[in-house]
Amino acid sequence: MTKTLLLLPGDGIGSEVTAEVRRIVDALGLDVTLQEARFGGAAIDADGVPVTDETVALALAADAVLMGAVGGPKWAGQSFDTRPEAGLLRLREAMNVYANLRPARCFAALADASSLKRELVEGLDIMFVRELVGGVYFGKPRGIEMLANGERRGLNSHHYTTGQIRRVARTAFELAKGRTGRVCSVEKSNVMEAGLLWREEVQRLRDEDYPEIELTHMLADNCAMQLVRQPKQFDTILTDNLFGDMLSDEAAMLTGSLGLLPSAALGEAGRPGLYEPIHGSAPDIAGQGLANPSAAILSLAMAVRHSFGEERTAERIERAVETAIEGGTRTRDIGGGASTAEMGQAIAAAL
Amino acid sequence: MTKTLLLLPGDGIGSEVTAEVRRIVDALGLDVTLQEARFGGAAIDADGVPVTDETVALALAADAVLMGAVGGPKWAGQSFDTRPEAGLLRLREAMNVYANLRPARCFAALADASSLKRELVEGLDIMFVRELVGGVYFGKPRGIEMLANGERRGLNSHHYTTGQIRRVARTAFELAKGRTGRVCSVEKSNVMEAGLLWREEVQRLRDEDYPEIELTHMLADNCAMQLVRQPKQFDTILTDNLFGDMLSDEAAMLTGSLGLLPSAALGEAGRPGLYEPIHGSAPDIAGQGLANPSAAILSLAMAVRHSFGEERTAERIERAVETAIEGGTRTRDIGGGASTAEMGQAIAAAL
Ligand SMILES: CC(C)[C@H](C(=O)O)[C@@H](O)C(=O)O
Ligand SMILES: CC(C)[C@H](C(=O)O)[C@@H](O)C(=O)O
Repeated sequence: MTKTLLLLPGDGIGSEVTAEVRRIVDALGLDVTLQEARFGGAAIDADGVPVTDETVALALAADAVLMGAVGGPKWAGQSFDTRPEAGLLRLREAMNVYANLRPARCFAALADASSLKRELVEGLDIMFVRELVGGVYFGKPRGIEMLANGERRGLNSHHYTTGQIRRVARTAFELAKGRTGRVCSVEKSNVMEAGLLWREEVQRLRDEDYPEIELTHMLADNCAMQLVRQPKQFDTILTDNLFGDMLSDEAAMLTGSLGLLPSAALGEAGRPGLYEPIHGSAPDIAGQGLANPSAAILSLAMAVRHSFGEERTAERIERAVETAIEGGTRTRDIGGGASTAEMGQAIAAAL
Repeated sequence: MTKTLLLLPGDGIGSEVTAEVRRIVDALGLDVTLQEARFGGAAIDADGVPVTDETVALALAADAVLMGAVGGPKWAGQSFDTRPEAGLLRLREAMNVYANLRPARCFAALADASSLKRELVEGLDIMFVRELVGGVYFGKPRGIEMLANGERRGLNSHHYTTGQIRRVARTAFELAKGRTGRVCSVEKSNVMEAGLLWREEVQRLRDEDYPEIELTHMLADNCAMQLVRQPKQFDTILTDNLFGDMLSDEAAMLTGSLGLLPSAALGEAGRPGLYEPIHGSAPDIAGQGLANPSAAILSLAMAVRHSFGEERTAERIERAVETAIEGGTRTRDIGGGASTAEMGQAIAAAL
């Protein structure tokens, strides 16, 4: 059955890397209808909003959505509600993609590119499961108010319900079953009641439905340290929206393979997933053919796996990326001189 | 004029490291009256609460308070409001110590102990200024409530006012003047209105009163990455309570010198400061004479500098710690076999 993939190139290097995703779809001869829409700053410029209602509708009707990157200095002056990021948050919420899968893998060929000593990161393979549509990102009340004394007050609210915690924890436990079975749940339960609820509900779901999972709990500050000290102690890390944002970025940087890391945001079974490379829009190198398309192509692999249900094709794409890199084709970020298109060609050739 | 220093040994290795602080106070012949009170789990066991009203009163009447460490598995089952950490939060709030100074320095003799490659951390010297009595740690409403559908909901509130932001930013700018003059302010202004207010108010104070400060702004997720990628890009990092908790711990671990890092929490001029080593209560090695007292002794140095106003004596203590370590006296955490007392003796001898 023909699948629909909506491409949202977005800003900066986004259009360059999604062009290479098209190349891979073609090379694979996938039975996929490609659509494309403006997103982020590009949509602000053309449509006045970072994402239009039509684009949200297209996303909800697609089997998968693949985003390039959003934002850049050009839109830094936008008001809070119309900035590029607001489009991304709106899309995540509309698609209800509550589980954000962010693998932090160290590619063997790049172990020396890490800031960390080689032995600490070689073979590193952490799967972050970050809650993506709750917490302080979406909590109300929120805003900036004027106080009687002339000062201002900025307010955000952080909350999670039992149901929100259980559904994302279930995703983490299911994923961990296909890995080593170890899940570390991260919060600040010593300071935040919402973190205490998180810990209790995650533990309860494990005890009820996943006795085979080895579940541990860690405070977020300690996790930020342990990722540096001994990252290989972790297999699957389950955490909330804000902690997941910071910790998964920290872990991604540890691998030395930042330009290669994809992500998937998944909702209820049968609903479309949202896929994006971890890297940003990189305005400094945009339009120069220098960007590494590997992370976007690996995001396609995740879409093929999780939204199209074709595990074997997903693995084929992943192997092709490794083969191309090991074969010496490398963009500047990973120590080579290949262009975006040359990298895409090498991956297509390796398929 | 005789100064008063209140020691709060607390739990785990806390009493061992504060005993060495006493040794240094004696060796220096400081004109200081030492007091001592129970704190954390030790206070829960004896008094039923993690800090008594009498201890809070002693702290407010002292010139400085030096804490060892709090918490441990023994008190993991305490209710949220009577856990050891609640005592620490109550004390910080009562003392109104809104600016938490957390240096992340790499000791030359220990550069190889870092997870990072030596060239990335050698000479590293970051000063974190973390807001300590606001944000999600103290915001109301908060708690866990029962919903009509039988689920529970955990809630925390995060807010900052103009005044709260400006006073801690001022501390950071003043400190930075004595360093390289560069301050990086960290928030999530792309997602949180409270972060946007933070950014605006910090910038406004800089423009009004500190034109000589070179101020930059960074998102917290990016900061978590940049600390790994190129930590030496930072001089002074100004951030809120929660981000400061995680980022300063990440940076501390980067240095490879965790057992050596002190901290200071300061309030209004003339009010007592609260000093504590960055490390925890380390229940696994407590009572065995294995703990490194250096961080506690360097916390004493910060107390001598910021609360007693004796810069020269503070530097003398700091030099003595470095001399002892370079001379080869090292506890287990930094690759040696010295006991807690031997380390304290070596530092006293080097004074
Ligand atoms: C762009 C921004 C809103 C986003 C986030 O904070 O979630 C990004 O940092 C990410 O992690 O995908
Ligand atoms: C013990 C805990 C409450 C505390 C905090 O989160 O502030 C600790 O992690 C710290 O950083 O001093």
